[in-house]
Amino acid sequence: MISIDSFDNKRIKQIKSLKQKKYRLKLNRYLLEGIKVINEAVISKKARELYIRFSNENDREIKNIIKNFDHNNSIFILNDKLFDSLTDTINSQGIIAICERNILDIEEILPFGKYILLDRISDPGNLGGIIRSAEAFEFDGAILSPGCVDIYNEKTVRATSASIFRLPIYEMKSRNQIDILKKLKFKIFAADMNGSSMINENELLQNFILIIGNEGQGVGEDFLTKDIKKIHIPMKNSVESLNANVAASIMMFESYRRSIEK
Amino acid sequence: MISIDSFDNKRIKQIKSLKQKKYRLKLNRYLLEGIKVINEAVISKKARELYIRFSNENDREIKNIIKNFDHNNSIFILNDKLFDSLTDTINSQGIIAICERNILDIEEILPFGKYILLDRISDPGNLGGIIRSAEAFEFDGAILSPGCVDIYNEKTVRATSASIFRLPIYEMKSRNQIDILKKLKFKIFAADMNGSSMINENELLQNFILIIGNEGQGVGEDFLTKDIKKIHIPMKNSVESLNANVAASIMMFESYRRSIEK
Repeated sequence: MISIDSFDNKRIKQIKSLKQKKYRLKLNRYLLEGIKVINEAVISKKARELYIRFSNENDREIKNIIKNFDHNNSIFILNDKLFDSLTDTINSQGIIAICERNILDIEEILPFGKYILLDRISDPGNLGGIIRSAEAFEFDGAILSPGCVDIYNEKTVRATSASIFRLPIYEMKSRNQIDILKKLKFKIFAADMNGSSMINENELLQNFILIIGNEGQGVGEDFLTKDIKKIHIPMKNSVESLNANVAASIMMFESYRRSIEK
Repeated sequence: MISIDSFDNKRIKQIKSLKQKKYRLKLNRYLLEGIKVINEAVISKKARELYIRFSNENDREIKNIIKNFDHNNSIFILNDKLFDSLTDTINSQGIIAICERNILDIEEILPFGKYILLDRISDPGNLGGIIRSAEAFEFDGAILSPGCVDIYNEKTVRATSASIFRLPIYEMKSRNQIDILKKLKFKIFAADMNGSSMINENELLQNFILIIGNEGQGVGEDFLTKDIKKIHIPMKNSVESLNANVAASIMMFESYRRSIEK
């Protein structure tokens, strides 16, 4: 364990820079705060460096995290003043971790399984919640279109409730990469309130992609080609739509329920 | 329409006070900002007073709201500086409304129908989202336990996507008022990850209450008496739980799906 006492230390500067998305992308890393989520990251082997507040070094849960952590020379102890300048102690609970971003290229996707494609989801709570539900309902991964909120935004990570460390995440570099999925013979469904058929009339069982659209605008027109089937969740007419996380989760649940009831 | 130019005006002071929960309760009113939600409130006859930014008075959508509003002597025009001191123009879109709180006493509940009981839900986005889904899946109302986040918190109202103006909301004054529901012969289910049976093995069809618990702690032990059946959503073992809004919405959807498939 290494002590850091200087505000000028390059590792301290790195932590500060990682609060901005551009540096998260450039450095291919992101920050985590809080005991529970860091413990999950350590167990899933995603954490690379730990930063601990001097006065919290002997907290039982922090000692437990250290015990699970493989890289003993990447643990840093910060004096309280320095640590508190980086974050508020209450949310961080005396520990910060730096983790590596782990996003796969859509070209690496295997030609079978169940995937959810997120088309410009803008709310971190929605994006994180959908990833949490995708793991719960045994989807094989999530695919992010260009324009989604950063998946390593702190709020997003928190909302995934550690599913982000376990669910494979794929990224599209451009919208026309949807052709890669079509060529792989996936059946593609798009959630759309004006969809011609209801989720419970369709068999979402294997080798399919389910597209969930932006909170305000829905699935982009360019994705809604003839070969993509639009489906909706049955509901009362007076209600315009559901929350994006809720709609995605209900559709994934419905697919899962059918697979286990078979 | 009445012009207001003074920061000392008592109506201006009222708007400021309504940003705090204690005054919302005391005055039995709450604030809304933004064109879409205020238009819904006006259509649903829930808005009592409108406050409009002078420079936005002739915006097409604001004129449309004024046209739908029944109380012409409760429309107030504020000079831009005064309006901007109350809110930021971007979120408010030049209009603020004061609405009346409209919460029913649990003793007024009818002895039949489908209700969702929210036990100390603490996140405004979750509470609002559940109310939105409850309307979508034709529940007859939501019941709030003591300790839920304020339903007239601005974030909650926004997350309901106007369902708050249409779904009946009941309030428990104390936790033991659950006995009122038991005496009315409702069948009571509680969402619980360790529940003995799965949602899809149960018939949630009529005259029942579904309890959803606090995000961290679940349904309170005092509610989990022997006559209350604990149910869970089937999912992958590695996932600890779902987001509260997602869990509630899936359970309500499952009840609705069965009712329409019958």
